[in-house]
Amino acid sequence: MRGAGAIVAEDGIWHGGDLATARALFPEAPQPWVDLSTGINPIPYPLPPLPLSLWVRLPGADDEAALLAAARNAYRVPAHAGIVAAPGTQILIELLPHLAPSGPVAIFGPTYAEHGHAWRKAGFAVSEAAMPEQAATVVVVNPNNPDGRVLLREELASLATQCGARGGLLVVDEAFADFTPEASVLPDLPPDTVVLRSFGKTYGLAGLRLGFAIGAPDPMAKLKAALGPWSVAGPALRVGAQALADIGWLVRAGEERARDAARLDALLAAHGRIVGGTSLFRLLETSAAAALFARLGRHGIYVRRFQNAPDRLRFGLPGDASGWVRLQAALAGDASEVSPSA
Amino acid sequence: MRGAGAIVAEDGIWHGGDLATARALFPEAPQPWVDLSTGINPIPYPLPPLPLSLWVRLPGADDEAALLAAARNAYRVPAHAGIVAAPGTQILIELLPHLAPSGPVAIFGPTYAEHGHAWRKAGFAVSEAAMPEQAATVVVVNPNNPDGRVLLREELASLATQCGARGGLLVVDEAFADFTPEASVLPDLPPDTVVLRSFGKTYGLAGLRLGFAIGAPDPMAKLKAALGPWSVAGPALRVGAQALADIGWLVRAGEERARDAARLDALLAAHGRIVGGTSLFRLLETSAAAALFARLGRHGIYVRRFQNAPDRLRFGLPGDASGWVRLQAALAGDASEVSPSA
Repeated sequence: MRGAGAIVAEDGIWHGGDLATARALFPEAPQPWVDLSTGINPIPYPLPPLPLSLWVRLPGADDEAALLAAARNAYRVPAHAGIVAAPGTQILIELLPHLAPSGPVAIFGPTYAEHGHAWRKAGFAVSEAAMPEQAATVVVVNPNNPDGRVLLREELASLATQCGARGGLLVVDEAFADFTPEASVLPDLPPDTVVLRSFGKTYGLAGLRLGFAIGAPDPMAKLKAALGPWSVAGPALRVGAQALADIGWLVRAGEERARDAARLDALLAAHGRIVGGTSLFRLLETSAAAALFARLGRHGIYVRRFQNAPDRLRFGLPGDASGWVRLQAALAGDASEVSPSA
Repeated sequence: MRGAGAIVAEDGIWHGGDLATARALFPEAPQPWVDLSTGINPIPYPLPPLPLSLWVRLPGADDEAALLAAARNAYRVPAHAGIVAAPGTQILIELLPHLAPSGPVAIFGPTYAEHGHAWRKAGFAVSEAAMPEQAATVVVVNPNNPDGRVLLREELASLATQCGARGGLLVVDEAFADFTPEASVLPDLPPDTVVLRSFGKTYGLAGLRLGFAIGAPDPMAKLKAALGPWSVAGPALRVGAQALADIGWLVRAGEERARDAARLDALLAAHGRIVGGTSLFRLLETSAAAALFARLGRHGIYVRRFQNAPDRLRFGLPGDASGWVRLQAALAGDASEVSPSA
């Protein structure tokens, strides 16, 4: 079985979200798939009207400025910090190692595997197991994916000080911090720190490709130069600016997804131990993970497995009543409720 | 006057297309602006319906495969070559120098300034004035922007052989080759050659951000790795796949734009000498370029000036009857025909 339940990207890393792999793994599964393999909000921010000018013209400096102003406000970026928009956080993860000081890199793992991969590709010595004393650069995903672990601001500030003293950098990936703003280091951004923020997960628009890096002005100017002009599409500039300015939507979505996450916990309780998560995904630990993954797959429900943690499954949130019903039925093992004719 | 008629990107390079600068230069100009400062087709490919799934999901491997298959067919890419899609050609221009062999770089100038800038940023010795014998890597924009100069396939193959013998690379930027497929080196792609193709200009969708690199499989795999997964947005994958498969539209658009370019030449004939161009833009040479630029600007018509060629103006094509009427009136110097109440 290719990838055994997660797509294998060209870099060999498993990811959720590609239903082509789900279909290949479970060709007999009822359609449509209920895709719980990502941590993307299943209730997207409503797309605003997109005038044709956003598609036909090169993205304008004024549109980019509007996006960055909205992002500064939403993320509470200090005025002295720089901010760069990119077509998704992934490309920032790829570029950061090429602009970073040399020295060993420690990644607070297990976590999103693309961080370690990018630093290794760039020739850095990377440790993911522990947090060695001698690391110059430290990478923390906060809250962490997949276990939701949160480091306190004070811990992060202390890490930043240590990295700075060694001539390095603290990288904080806050892809899942939007619904828990109290977890963000941005309002009191420490020196020698780069923060990554992702637009697509919270706003349920992962196909749009929009992410941000925030840090000291000089490294941010270097990131911007590495991306070159017009890296973010016109429609993404507009949707991002409007959504990030809509704090009311963010608060309501956060409350609703927290309720969904509690509902998911209740469904999963009989199947193992919830060992963490955020309000966009929950991490289940069970010695029967492989069997449960296969049972869900046969019911057309795709969840996330992990290469190095075969006893864990990550569940995203169903996005509609049908998804909840099918998940409940599949967990109960009642195939009659999920047949295509039901 | 900031930039004096072209936006100044953060890298100090002038570009067309940003009307914020036009407004700043000519605050009294009649609205809306007729933007002739780019070489973008003013009649865009009609946007197909874009299902919400393209926005909400991470771009899927199947959508990317469909785009690349359409691009291979449209650009006549040999089966043995690799192809990479990116969010615009610009980021490929930025990345190429970081993956290229060392050695002096010669750019067949004057041409699109971002090429030289990117190679210099990456630490290469760059010559743009001539084509030195000892250059390892040669960059050719073909057809050239802004003068439309076309090198024959045989000349490009010979350049590629010389670059390869010196351990270097031939880079051919075919951003303006779609309407003159006979100018493309792709069907007989020489070794040690990387070709860049841009989607946004011909298809009039520059805000979408989509470009391609084509070359030997190994350097293309390195480019793909540098971009990381999901670099092209879901909507761009779909629009690109559909448009690139629509060869009928391309042929009709090419005929229509060639007629527009001839019409533009006729209008400009009294104002200087047409020294080149493609069917998306024409290059006018006149000692009165500065005065003509200012006159057009006061009439709300924005054309492209050049930092190093003050006697040249580049004209894109008007996209509608009003644009043609206003251009004709402005060239004739008749302000009454272009007042906002007309």
